[in-house]
Amino acid sequence: MRKDLGNLGAVYPMPVLIVAAYDENGVPCAMNAAWGMICGYHEIALFIDEEHKTTQNIRATKAFTVSLADQDHVAEADYLGIATGNKMPDKFAKSGLTATKSEKVNAPIIEEFPVCMECELAEIVETENVHAVIGRIINTNVDEKVLNENGKVEISKLNALIFDQFQAGYYVTGAQAGQAWRDGRKLLGE
Amino acid sequence: MRKDLGNLGAVYPMPVLIVAAYDENGVPCAMNAAWGMICGYHEIALFIDEEHKTTQNIRATKAFTVSLADQDHVAEADYLGIATGNKMPDKFAKSGLTATKSEKVNAPIIEEFPVCMECELAEIVETENVHAVIGRIINTNVDEKVLNENGKVEISKLNALIFDQFQAGYYVTGAQAGQAWRDGRKLLGE
Repeated sequence: MRKDLGNLGAVYPMPVLIVAAYDENGVPCAMNAAWGMICGYHEIALFIDEEHKTTQNIRATKAFTVSLADQDHVAEADYLGIATGNKMPDKFAKSGLTATKSEKVNAPIIEEFPVCMECELAEIVETENVHAVIGRIINTNVDEKVLNENGKVEISKLNALIFDQFQAGYYVTGAQAGQAWRDGRKLLGE
Repeated sequence: MRKDLGNLGAVYPMPVLIVAAYDENGVPCAMNAAWGMICGYHEIALFIDEEHKTTQNIRATKAFTVSLADQDHVAEADYLGIATGNKMPDKFAKSGLTATKSEKVNAPIIEEFPVCMECELAEIVETENVHAVIGRIINTNVDEKVLNENGKVEISKLNALIFDQFQAGYYVTGAQAGQAWRDGRKLLGE
């Protein structure tokens, strides 16, 4: 039996993205955003609105980073989603996280998170239905501990958080269930 | 030690979204898309380009559905990402999946997938950096087997697939690692 739940946003999984940028004085701020995704081979879209301190910082500096939050830093990641940069100038400092200036863009890399996309602001899309900050990914900087012997990010080492919008849970990844561009071939008749 | 991987798209987790629409003759087609996310409280953005048969269908019918692929249908979900609707008019039929017309929008619900967002086309955003199909979520239709006693989607019952863009793996969810809007409070000093 199926049931109607109304006009509920129901994408799962969602990422736990930590978006970081400097203000005009070089003070880092960061926020937790689940509404973001790759939107091109070297582009990322973040659906974050104008009110955020981080959005204002991105408009000022034209750069930002996007890190993947991991299991060892659930409290820090969640705090960055609760605390408001506009009301707390020391928001980032209170997180206890470490910001190091990117060598590629004018934005902070947060050392504790294992994967960090260093982005230049490509554009801010504003339409009737969408407000999106679009970044051009200049470089992805990773902690070597999450790479396998071939230099690729290994999901079992990454321990990235997953956000559940239905009940506001954070999860980690379980077992591998298949392989893309392989498992469907039998239905092609190949 | 940290390492640079170049301009690599590195969001994880990514969803395995199955986007379905009818063509002008009422024939269903569907595709697998990882580049999609909620972009507002009742909106979804899909970064799928004009060449897809599904995009053409959405332009024609102004409606589509977005389902979450699950572990029991890895082969079918992957097939919908490999097969090309433009070259295979019977692509959807060959999947073995069941399309039932939505009562809310002019688009097919795929019965086998547990969660389905029924959407009207809100707009197609085309800028220098982005091509996005934006849907207004009219209703979310779910299989009761994935709901808990409070009527909410339960991640442990959903068995939704997760896509790993680093190594093209499909995964399922593991353990709960935390709770949003709670775990970060201690850093607020509350």
